[in-house]
Amino acid sequence: MVDQTSLGLRSLVKQDGSLELSLAQVTVSPPKNDEVIVRVEATPINPSDLGLLLAGGDVSSAKASGKGRQTVVAAPIAPAVMRALSARIGKSMPIGLEGAGVVTNAGPSPEAQALLGKTVSIFVGGMYGQLRKARAADCLVLPAGIKTEEAASAFVNPLTALGMLETARREGHKGLVHTAAASNLGQILNRLCQADGIPLVNIVRSEEQVQILKGLGAKHIVNSAQASFRDDLVSALKATGATLAFDAIGGGKLAGQILVAAGASAETYNMYGSSVHKQVYIYGTLDPGPIELTRGSGMAWGIGGWLLFHFLAKVGPDVEAQLKARVASEIRTNFASHYTRTISLLEALDPGVIAAYSRRATGEKFLINPSLAIE
Amino acid sequence: MVDQTSLGLRSLVKQDGSLELSLAQVTVSPPKNDEVIVRVEATPINPSDLGLLLAGGDVSSAKASGKGRQTVVAAPIAPAVMRALSARIGKSMPIGLEGAGVVTNAGPSPEAQALLGKTVSIFVGGMYGQLRKARAADCLVLPAGIKTEEAASAFVNPLTALGMLETARREGHKGLVHTAAASNLGQILNRLCQADGIPLVNIVRSEEQVQILKGLGAKHIVNSAQASFRDDLVSALKATGATLAFDAIGGGKLAGQILVAAGASAETYNMYGSSVHKQVYIYGTLDPGPIELTRGSGMAWGIGGWLLFHFLAKVGPDVEAQLKARVASEIRTNFASHYTRTISLLEALDPGVIAAYSRRATGEKFLINPSLAIE
Repeated sequence: MVDQTSLGLRSLVKQDGSLELSLAQVTVSPPKNDEVIVRVEATPINPSDLGLLLAGGDVSSAKASGKGRQTVVAAPIAPAVMRALSARIGKSMPIGLEGAGVVTNAGPSPEAQALLGKTVSIFVGGMYGQLRKARAADCLVLPAGIKTEEAASAFVNPLTALGMLETARREGHKGLVHTAAASNLGQILNRLCQADGIPLVNIVRSEEQVQILKGLGAKHIVNSAQASFRDDLVSALKATGATLAFDAIGGGKLAGQILVAAGASAETYNMYGSSVHKQVYIYGTLDPGPIELTRGSGMAWGIGGWLLFHFLAKVGPDVEAQLKARVASEIRTNFASHYTRTISLLEALDPGVIAAYSRRATGEKFLINPSLAIE
Repeated sequence: MVDQTSLGLRSLVKQDGSLELSLAQVTVSPPKNDEVIVRVEATPINPSDLGLLLAGGDVSSAKASGKGRQTVVAAPIAPAVMRALSARIGKSMPIGLEGAGVVTNAGPSPEAQALLGKTVSIFVGGMYGQLRKARAADCLVLPAGIKTEEAASAFVNPLTALGMLETARREGHKGLVHTAAASNLGQILNRLCQADGIPLVNIVRSEEQVQILKGLGAKHIVNSAQASFRDDLVSALKATGATLAFDAIGGGKLAGQILVAAGASAETYNMYGSSVHKQVYIYGTLDPGPIELTRGSGMAWGIGGWLLFHFLAKVGPDVEAQLKARVASEIRTNFASHYTRTISLLEALDPGVIAAYSRRATGEKFLINPSLAIE
């Protein structure tokens, strides 16, 4: 076997306060031992990828130069955002947390050889590229006949949704609240909660999103754009007993409103306010502005960051393996994802396309197919 | 033995949106079994007592009527504050979490009889009164010869300070941050951290408070009134490795600034920001306004309420007994409190005195002596 070359998307934060996106050609050496090489055919653009890809840059001012594989996109990054990026400056970063493809080469170990020609999902980063080397143990083999597009999103959203349920169980909550609930992740969470019999309060921001969730059979839907939002939320929390929320938005008042509503809906009350512990985990940054918490939920409350990688590190490899096995067996049902557009690596560098996928609009989800031709 | 009468301070939130403070006379029946009656001589006005006593009322508008034991004080409560008080409306509440006195009557059990004539500290609420019935097991017997004034504050601040250290140990933090650090509690915390060799970052708001802490031998003092505050805080966090803060203030930006500074000072960094868990517990409400958290501390962060009663319930009675035993043995050293003024129950109803003790100024601490004469 000989060295191969692979084009991959790179994100670079420069000292001068700019973001540079480009395609880099790298050499992929033959796989050793239990290594395999995957020809990547489907890798989603998740919100968590966007954060790393765009680094908070102002993509409305993005400018492209060069042609084909020499295309380079530049966009400015605000000084306040730059401060948080110091550890990234000057490092050309491969992007793409997860994806699926076909195993084209394998090292000599039996585990690697057994994967030759198989469609696998991997979750090792750097997926926005033509070839990705991985270890056989990192490959999730999906049911026979599955397309790479169906296998593309087997980790980030599925494990996040399962991680939310597992967190609720471990921390003793009876039900869940989810914001930005009509998202792809929110839809998976609805299917899982219905399957597992766990009450779920869905918070959305528009009537259109209410309808999406009704179509999925969601029972508790609260629209934050309604004047009755606060009362509706208290009623839904009372009906479900939910005391744990996962919030994708972050900035603004919503997380605090959930805590106060949970305090108001809790049955026990003493002179320090509700003594039932109420928790909000913020796992996204749809609004990067400050989080504003109004007091009034008593003293038994918490808010914090929630990151899939920290969760997996906490629960350990055995639980992680169990969760992945469930994803593999339910990939076409509970964990199905839908994409509104498939693009090539080169299209991912088009300022107009960047504007579209960076919008993160409800119902829109982009897939990159790195095997599509680049002139 | 016959019934006795006892005058005690009461706080009442009325449906019309007003606070009423008064003295109520109650009948105290003879102690049964393991009960004792304590003649209360010293009970502090802690910030946690003020919250229950004043219920967020506007004490600058307080008006007194009546004389002597018929004195009644009324103050308005803002509608927004009233909403959080619904469970209190119409309930005349006794006040005073802790205090000390002399056991004057005891039930027939040997444990109760053994306490007759002894100076004890109790932590059973309703201490702002002349007599308090308690169980023998609730009485902490202090070293011989101690004055009731020295025994008055044996629980709230000592157990809170010990609870902070215990929380740090249980959650795996190497050092602590404390805000409003020149307070009585902050001074106890400094003595304890020095005794136990735990690094402590003291955040204060004035040069006067810096001097108080220097006088106590504090090593890490950061003044939030200085322009260099942010950098000073990062340096102190780096020097100590502190990743857990206890904040008495609550409202405003400080809690968020601590999280961001802790993220900036942490040694490990990955693409999601610092992966070291950074935690702020808010245990007070010096500023009842909204808490504003700026993002920028990565995903491994948490903020939440911390209440001594929830902590004690969590650690269980054995740990609570250990902590109390330490308080008793170090009550004159590490856990010593100082008072700037001693008042009678009647003086506690004087609008001018209320204005003074509700200010919660650094270095000022009031003690009520309910055994002082009331005409």
